[in-house]
Amino acid sequence: MKTNELPKYFKNIDDELWFEEVEVEKKDLKISYKVNKCFSYAKSPYQEVALIDTNAFGPCLVLDGVMQTTSADGFIYNEMITHIPVLTHKNPKNVLVIGGGDCGAVRELAKYEELETIDMVELDELVTEECIKFLPEISGGPSFDKRINFKFGDGVEYVKETDIKYDIVMVDSPDPEGPAKDLFGEEFYKNVKRTLKTDGVMVCQSESPMIHRNIIENTRKILKNNFKIVKTYIAFVPTYPGGIWSFTMASDVYDPSDMDVNRLPLETRYLTKKIVKSCFDLPNFISDLK
Amino acid sequence: MKTNELPKYFKNIDDELWFEEVEVEKKDLKISYKVNKCFSYAKSPYQEVALIDTNAFGPCLVLDGVMQTTSADGFIYNEMITHIPVLTHKNPKNVLVIGGGDCGAVRELAKYEELETIDMVELDELVTEECIKFLPEISGGPSFDKRINFKFGDGVEYVKETDIKYDIVMVDSPDPEGPAKDLFGEEFYKNVKRTLKTDGVMVCQSESPMIHRNIIENTRKILKNNFKIVKTYIAFVPTYPGGIWSFTMASDVYDPSDMDVNRLPLETRYLTKKIVKSCFDLPNFISDLK
Repeated sequence: MKTNELPKYFKNIDDELWFEEVEVEKKDLKISYKVNKCFSYAKSPYQEVALIDTNAFGPCLVLDGVMQTTSADGFIYNEMITHIPVLTHKNPKNVLVIGGGDCGAVRELAKYEELETIDMVELDELVTEECIKFLPEISGGPSFDKRINFKFGDGVEYVKETDIKYDIVMVDSPDPEGPAKDLFGEEFYKNVKRTLKTDGVMVCQSESPMIHRNIIENTRKILKNNFKIVKTYIAFVPTYPGGIWSFTMASDVYDPSDMDVNRLPLETRYLTKKIVKSCFDLPNFISDLK
Repeated sequence: MKTNELPKYFKNIDDELWFEEVEVEKKDLKISYKVNKCFSYAKSPYQEVALIDTNAFGPCLVLDGVMQTTSADGFIYNEMITHIPVLTHKNPKNVLVIGGGDCGAVRELAKYEELETIDMVELDELVTEECIKFLPEISGGPSFDKRINFKFGDGVEYVKETDIKYDIVMVDSPDPEGPAKDLFGEEFYKNVKRTLKTDGVMVCQSESPMIHRNIIENTRKILKNNFKIVKTYIAFVPTYPGGIWSFTMASDVYDPSDMDVNRLPLETRYLTKKIVKSCFDLPNFISDLK
């Protein structure tokens, strides 16, 4: 349903429009962005989807009042969640992306010629439609590599039911609130493992080591119960509260310390051959995490 | 002058007290912190000095409405600005800190037994007094290592006039607004060089590579005009807008790639022997900077 109203988290302050994001867990921190324009705002069956143009970070995707990705820094998140598992796997052919409706992750994956199939299971088709229209810096716009298959539906159900076995599964989820809550539970990760080949690699975004330490520890605990090798890595994600973001990857076979950095595609804006290794060198206060 | 009023950047929202920080340059981004308590608020001859307790990051120092350091993440900034130049210099004996009124940098320096003299020239004695009282997590509280000498006064004048020659000069400045503006100009850096021994090392905080790219480029240009070796490194500083922070070091003799990482003191919370090296591995979009 398209709507003409403005999102309730927009505020008019001294004749300027501002988008105010409240940190979800403790509600004691807000980031506010001056808004130049609201490209689109609509309610899908799952959430409120807004595409807005901010002065500081350009066009952005906002879901239920939470900043998801911006034109200015979305490339960092997408490069980090994509290249680390692909380089860690020695010979990947097919990849499943769960979530990732902004299409930034599948666009990064398409940089690898060796991949034959890239499946994306996004719950909310409206997110993808709007990002294709209003966020081409992330989505790449309306034309997609032929290896990419959109399968709109529930990722939790998909990994329970599919017969396909993947080399890599990437869990590109929003915060564990609302429709994404199940993407942080043990049953889901057991099914992710079921969907992987025996030498498969999985990765998930595991939230901020500054603010959501309990989420990282819980995710790591679940993954350690199910995989032999579990490694957390970090990157700067300026527009997420706390600034540092963590990702956790898991496999029974492949260790990221053995990755061949020379397979990194040339066209990256954040990652270098050095950083694909050094992102695993955690500061002491993060390596303390269980 | 002590005052009983609350800072004007405090806002009462739904019976909660919030501190709202506006990003200084473009004023299009705000970070807001829920405030538990205002420990102290006073106007010095130079600026408004507030010590506040935030829910998200604990006790914090705020100068003229700009967050300077928090108990939760101040250690990252202080470790980064201190250990990199000290490890880069082969045999440092005396260090000058310009600014650094929260005492976090001198406290880090005191971890090195080989240092004989640590001079700190802070403009605003009130900042130091209040941080000693209300920010012991950063300042270390009222007792200081005997090698630390407080010289309250103008750092710009100090480097113009002093006869002392230092092994290391650290410029631990606030944003280039108000009293700190001169700390970003070429005349100041020429005098910093005058104050260094011929094999001296200097470092400065050079702002955010996301938001203040012009400041980093300008700082690097000035330093390259005056030093043979100029290297920028980065760290996560969650409570600064943009999340990534940069530091730039310069020397005519010492290159950080030759540093002896084994001299790193044991008691660090952010830095590891790997990160003192990998902090110079810049993402592509930062190494693009001139």
